Amino acid sequence: MHSRRFVCAALVIVALPLALRAQTLQEKIRAHRVAHESELIAEFRDFVAIPNVSSDHENVRRNADYIVGMLKKRGVAAELLTIDRPGANPVVFGEVRVPGATRTVVFYAHYDGQPVNPKQWAEGLAPFQPVFLTDTVEHGGKIVADWQPGQPVNPQWRLSGRGAADDKAGVMMILNAYDALVKTGGVPSVNVKFFFEGEEEIGSTNLGAILAAHKAKAAADLWIICDGPRHVSGRKVVSFGVRGDVNLDLTAYAAKRPLHSGNYGNFAPNPALRLASLLASMKGDDGRVLVKNFYDDDVQFSETEKLAVEEASFTDAQLLAELGLKEPEVPGRSLLAGFELPTLNINGITSANTGKLAANIIPSTAKATLDLRLVLGNDWQRQTGRVLEHIKAQGWHVIDHEPTDAERAQFAKLIRVEVGQGYNAQRTPMSLPLAQAVVAAVQSTTSEPVVKLPTVGGSLPLIIIEQVLGTRVLTVPSVNYDNNQHAENENVKVQYLWDGIETFAALMTMK
Amino acid sequence: MHSRRFVCAALVIVALPLALRAQTLQEKIRAHRVAHESELIAEFRDFVAIPNVSSDHENVRRNADYIVGMLKKRGVAAELLTIDRPGANPVVFGEVRVPGATRTVVFYAHYDGQPVNPKQWAEGLAPFQPVFLTDTVEHGGKIVADWQPGQPVNPQWRLSGRGAADDKAGVMMILNAYDALVKTGGVPSVNVKFFFEGEEEIGSTNLGAILAAHKAKAAADLWIICDGPRHVSGRKVVSFGVRGDVNLDLTAYAAKRPLHSGNYGNFAPNPALRLASLLASMKGDDGRVLVKNFYDDDVQFSETEKLAVEEASFTDAQLLAELGLKEPEVPGRSLLAGFELPTLNINGITSANTGKLAANIIPSTAKATLDLRLVLGNDWQRQTGRVLEHIKAQGWHVIDHEPTDAERAQFAKLIRVEVGQGYNAQRTPMSLPLAQAVVAAVQSTTSEPVVKLPTVGGSLPLIIIEQVLGTRVLTVPSVNYDNNQHAENENVKVQYLWDGIETFAALMTMK
Repeated sequence: MHSRRFVCAALVIVALPLALRAQTLQEKIRAHRVAHESELIAEFRDFVAIPNVSSDHENVRRNADYIVGMLKKRGVAAELLTIDRPGANPVVFGEVRVPGATRTVVFYAHYDGQPVNPKQWAEGLAPFQPVFLTDTVEHGGKIVADWQPGQPVNPQWRLSGRGAADDKAGVMMILNAYDALVKTGGVPSVNVKFFFEGEEEIGSTNLGAILAAHKAKAAADLWIICDGPRHVSGRKVVSFGVRGDVNLDLTAYAAKRPLHSGNYGNFAPNPALRLASLLASMKGDDGRVLVKNFYDDDVQFSETEKLAVEEASFTDAQLLAELGLKEPEVPGRSLLAGFELPTLNINGITSANTGKLAANIIPSTAKATLDLRLVLGNDWQRQTGRVLEHIKAQGWHVIDHEPTDAERAQFAKLIRVEVGQGYNAQRTPMSLPLAQAVVAAVQSTTSEPVVKLPTVGGSLPLIIIEQVLGTRVLTVPSVNYDNNQHAENENVKVQYLWDGIETFAALMTMK
Repeated sequence: MHSRRFVCAALVIVALPLALRAQTLQEKIRAHRVAHESELIAEFRDFVAIPNVSSDHENVRRNADYIVGMLKKRGVAAELLTIDRPGANPVVFGEVRVPGATRTVVFYAHYDGQPVNPKQWAEGLAPFQPVFLTDTVEHGGKIVADWQPGQPVNPQWRLSGRGAADDKAGVMMILNAYDALVKTGGVPSVNVKFFFEGEEEIGSTNLGAILAAHKAKAAADLWIICDGPRHVSGRKVVSFGVRGDVNLDLTAYAAKRPLHSGNYGNFAPNPALRLASLLASMKGDDGRVLVKNFYDDDVQFSETEKLAVEEASFTDAQLLAELGLKEPEVPGRSLLAGFELPTLNINGITSANTGKLAANIIPSTAKATLDLRLVLGNDWQRQTGRVLEHIKAQGWHVIDHEPTDAERAQFAKLIRVEVGQGYNAQRTPMSLPLAQAVVAAVQSTTSEPVVKLPTVGGSLPLIIIEQVLGTRVLTVPSVNYDNNQHAENENVKVQYLWDGIETFAALMTMK
């Protein structure tokens, strides 16, 4: 049996190297997190369990109230910023003034989520019943059925749920970074503002108006956005720009009612075929969008930006294998190089049913939703206008409502096009001094070189912030790249939550 | 106040013309029906309320048992004809031998129905909760909410429900024709066999085997099929042929999981776009199928058949207006002329979601179900082979299973094609004497000229009957043309049920 004295001596020896130097900020933050993992997980699971589809205003409001509670628990006075528009979701705002700080930074995340179709989620998963998975569903991940609240969580596990990654993870990382910083005796180097939006997934329709109405509160030297995934390699990222975005809903009409395909085949036009022809006419097999003037006003990457993209490049072969693809849409073009160009994407097509549900009919309508991503130089209204012109040039009569009998009698090819609210792309110059400080702060938390992206592929309404406030914006994407955001089986890897807390604590103390 | 005597005298005068001559068969049948409408409606509503999707074997069996009960109630011994194959639905069979009869006629209908998607049905309607409508949903028909069982039914009303028209109406008409005939003292002129199939809507997969196993029971001089709609004008129809049919399910694959359209746009291929291109390549805007050799082996209509089609032609303008179409798929070609040609129809397309459910993703798969209608001369396996060759010629690698990782790594364009069980077209020569007797019988029940169609547009596996039994087959379609068969809001017009009872009573006493 070992003597008690011997054990104590061993502990002293092991602890010595750490005691000889001051603990780094990262070490303090990490130790605090390790000691509080159960509470952090419990709070985050409860948060993800609140339904947050942007259009579900009642539940969105429950999320806002929950975040207010999170802020208060951390000693931050919180309030809801709203405007007087029907259906506008509130921003959750909080502020910490730091004596002596000369700069103010807004930390942004959004708490609303994309629509969900629960039937498309894997067995045992539901959008708002978060569970732990051993890996992604696509990689054979299984539900950790025997885990109980309070038990340790493997950092390789994923927590499933709509918003788990996009973007409640952002709220979680930012708030816990601040909390860990303060609880371990740290002081932010900047005045910290918390700004959590509730309408990002529907195009931030009211963000401009909210900012304009609350200019003093939103004012800052810099906005830092926490949204989107880290690099495929796992490296941390600072992004200098985002693409813009706009959606179009198309509905092609044929006969007023679904028709027996035998009794009416070769007579009644098929809207699914006609819509397929239209969609096929929009983009070639070579991946090039065929809509006239589609690429006319793109601002190409500068030399500095091109170099950064090259530095950030990685083996697409690994990504392709992971996605189960032989080659990208345009063989030879890398994922990151594609971010320089606008996109035209089909989000979905629906016309009657397929497979076991299919019936031998000629459908009465066929629908598609398009997503246009925009790069610097594009204007969302000009870009959707080009698509509309293309549709008309294919012989369609475009309407914005259900067709009347008179319109049906007059036009053989009738299509309803509904253009959503869009916004343009935003890019911050890579040379900005404040941007260098952000890169340095993120770099202080990782031994791998930080990836600097001129733009990410995704979209955020950052241009609105620039336009209304005249403030620069940078993004620090922090979740795993295989998070299935916007789709079924969305998940966040636990280790990335832990890493994100360290990243944002570093940003709150940046030099 | 009128005297009682005066009223009686008036009745005698009105009744006199009828009393002077014997009541016709049709008058007797009609009078019997009028006296028993409540019972007929009650029984039929109960019948339609039993779910009958072909693949729902348990409920299909409940339908079969219900029909057995209907036969027994009419004094006909009934039995189920089956074969020893898993999932084979039974045929309900009954037989009435008539002393002195020299011919035997099988009266056929099917009691199974197409798949249903209840969400697509109009508000208040459900596939298996039949209700009365004042008109079709598309014509603004409303549910007759205040109707109670036992109350009179307006013959212009529709009864809603899957199978109400296609083809439980056939079972209803045939059994009630026999019942009315016998109950009013009539005797069939032929031995009557009842043959009700339970797998017509899935291609009559087992019909050949069932016929072969029960040849003596199925033997007859003629099969008369009650299925499909009467002429658009409302005229009664005898059809001499049907088209063949086969389905193909296509699934185009891209990345293994749905991807964020911003983070992966311009990199990951979109399966919806690729499937749209493929479908667009199959059929031109001029309505012509572009699959190589698609029209190579059609047997064109003979001169007699062409004349019949011309005689049957009607103003397509009225139909187009009713369907809300400016013009047919091929402007200038009539509905009936199109029956001479095979079809390639898209039953449906599904890839992720559209409209409010849409998310900004690149879908992982896109599916389409195709329906090929075949005419005399076509072979279903040859025709599907042509479509498969076309798909390959567009650069697709065709598989019949979920792709393996090895296949994903080897082929950029992967598509799964599942070919259903098909059957060929059938046409009986218009000159056949037995066919003339059928036309005469139907003509005896209507003052309008009977429409004689060389073929209907729809499909029935009549070729199987011809091949296995060597027996000729004719079809007497009897429901309203706007019945939405195969689709949501299926309905049968009550007057057509009453008319059908008279038609089949005449056929059971044909000369």
